[in-house]
Amino acid sequence: MDDRQRDKNIMEYETVALDDADSALVVIDQTKLPAVTELIRLHTAQEIWDAIYLLKVRGAPAIGVAAAFGIYLLAKGIDTEDYDVFCRKFREYKDYLNSARPTAVNLSWALNRMERICEDSRGLPVDGIRQRLKATALAMKEEDIRVCRAIGEHGLTLVRPGDGILTHCNAGQLATCRYGTATAPIYLGQERGYHFRVFADETRPLLQGARLTAYELQASGVDVTLICDNMCAAVMRNGWINAVFVGCDRVAANGDVANKIGTSVVATVAKRYNVPFYVCAPTSTIDMDTPTGADIVIEQRPAGEVTDMWYEKPMAPAGVKVFNPAFDVTDNELITGIVTEHGVLRPPYAEAFQALFRRRQEL
Amino acid sequence: MDDRQRDKNIMEYETVALDDADSALVVIDQTKLPAVTELIRLHTAQEIWDAIYLLKVRGAPAIGVAAAFGIYLLAKGIDTEDYDVFCRKFREYKDYLNSARPTAVNLSWALNRMERICEDSRGLPVDGIRQRLKATALAMKEEDIRVCRAIGEHGLTLVRPGDGILTHCNAGQLATCRYGTATAPIYLGQERGYHFRVFADETRPLLQGARLTAYELQASGVDVTLICDNMCAAVMRNGWINAVFVGCDRVAANGDVANKIGTSVVATVAKRYNVPFYVCAPTSTIDMDTPTGADIVIEQRPAGEVTDMWYEKPMAPAGVKVFNPAFDVTDNELITGIVTEHGVLRPPYAEAFQALFRRRQEL
Repeated sequence: MDDRQRDKNIMEYETVALDDADSALVVIDQTKLPAVTELIRLHTAQEIWDAIYLLKVRGAPAIGVAAAFGIYLLAKGIDTEDYDVFCRKFREYKDYLNSARPTAVNLSWALNRMERICEDSRGLPVDGIRQRLKATALAMKEEDIRVCRAIGEHGLTLVRPGDGILTHCNAGQLATCRYGTATAPIYLGQERGYHFRVFADETRPLLQGARLTAYELQASGVDVTLICDNMCAAVMRNGWINAVFVGCDRVAANGDVANKIGTSVVATVAKRYNVPFYVCAPTSTIDMDTPTGADIVIEQRPAGEVTDMWYEKPMAPAGVKVFNPAFDVTDNELITGIVTEHGVLRPPYAEAFQALFRRRQEL
Repeated sequence: MDDRQRDKNIMEYETVALDDADSALVVIDQTKLPAVTELIRLHTAQEIWDAIYLLKVRGAPAIGVAAAFGIYLLAKGIDTEDYDVFCRKFREYKDYLNSARPTAVNLSWALNRMERICEDSRGLPVDGIRQRLKATALAMKEEDIRVCRAIGEHGLTLVRPGDGILTHCNAGQLATCRYGTATAPIYLGQERGYHFRVFADETRPLLQGARLTAYELQASGVDVTLICDNMCAAVMRNGWINAVFVGCDRVAANGDVANKIGTSVVATVAKRYNVPFYVCAPTSTIDMDTPTGADIVIEQRPAGEVTDMWYEKPMAPAGVKVFNPAFDVTDNELITGIVTEHGVLRPPYAEAFQALFRRRQEL
């Protein structure tokens, strides 16, 4: 089943949703953008796993919410009233979905949070657990929207009207439920007439910057210019960039950040040109169980993503060896600030995180 | 007229040649590699200009030799025996060919050298001038081969067997008449059993690294791995790279270097990871009339090179703004050494160049 519509603005679609009949996870197939806007309806565990692995739904926050909706739908289909049987099957689904992508913490974070609902619900009828799972998944979606908006407000304090902003990959609305993370300051600025000049790195190999970020910003009326990843030094040298905003997939306890491959290149170049480099991170992305960037598992993806982008003209010699890591690690010393929903954190990050989590526990 | 052959190894073709009948400039159409190896025969000024502008023949040294052969063929066709008429028409052709690409100095360097032959030949019959032009163009080709080989010998002193070498764009055999500049140490090392592990940046937007460098190295039996431009930090962080070798299009008098867009990004990242960064430059590429990198004209190319790479699936939203500079400037302080045919120059480069040119004048 699909639902093709070309006349609606991409910004009118929800990135991740539960359908009205409560029977399917509905996502935009992001591998087909910007040519075709196609909503796909996912029902089975394998369909959901595939959609995450194949990047039909991508972006750390969006993956988290999709996994929450997904496991709720799968839990709804577990045909038992026995609590232990239900939980055992739930964990099987959880482990399976969790294996789709290793680097972004939001996937396991969301699935763990759903699992805790089961664990905390012993004694409830299974149908009651299902209702609590649904309520939690819906709450996570609302939370994502609130968190992104708060990141946007805090990020907006770091720039001025008319500023040039560079972003890498897509940490936009299409990576979240609304606003995006790195794009949240841009969208809030747009609402307030800030007239930013945004530069979007195309982001090889899968071109999320060209296909998704340039697309959604253009659809929102933002002044956006597309560049290749290797042009970041040229635009900074020209004095066109006042700040870099990027998203992230996992923040280690020392403030090292795993994000889309190439992020650390932009950070290194930004440091050379004295351009502040900001990482936009919901606190759910901060993983205190991962000491440093060296402890983050970097997903390796197939060679064909790099070599087979041209349909008629091969773009690389047949059989060439390829190294294709999906992410890289940006050292904390290259990061000017980490923008969370609770404010902008500054180095040293280990201390900043501890203070933040202590404060939140005290509340 | 064309000559398609798929069974020969790419390394058996000459990048730039004058045909046996002395009637055409013959080049490999590099826009069709690696899918199709097609030799094209160029006769008219417009055919030659187009081939350079459209990058059918590219690479600073190869452009220089192609321009020399090209202007010889055009001079051969000037139907006059009057010296002044001949020179006037020659200069018209020269200015026209020189306008094809602004950044690489070799184009104007080669055309100026051919023009000096005319200037120095007053009193000779025009047909004698034509013969001198041909001899000079053929000498320039032989010189290019000797210079590249010497660069290879000097470059080889900077690395050890088994080293990992990163290169950006194509400064390979396809960019010269043989050996390449950045690839010359690799090819000489290959002949001597050095077993380098080479990493080739794909080099967006036109993918010269994927289509040409990975192709020619693979065809030569070199261990080559293709990466996207934004993966240079990942491979250096992994400790896989012992040296970077790149070519260049123009070296300013202070040692700033204009080369393919993204070169300065690699240099900045190499500095962070303490990887030596070497520019391979025939001395003809050193332009003492250009004081610094800021004085080098950077060619801007059409947006479609960035946006229209996918044939069936658009890779960027329709009508998006694009910034597409073909080159960037790498500051001299990022360059560990400049490898010329006369040896490896070290900073400060202004002094090193002056000493080199003084020594050569004295000889």
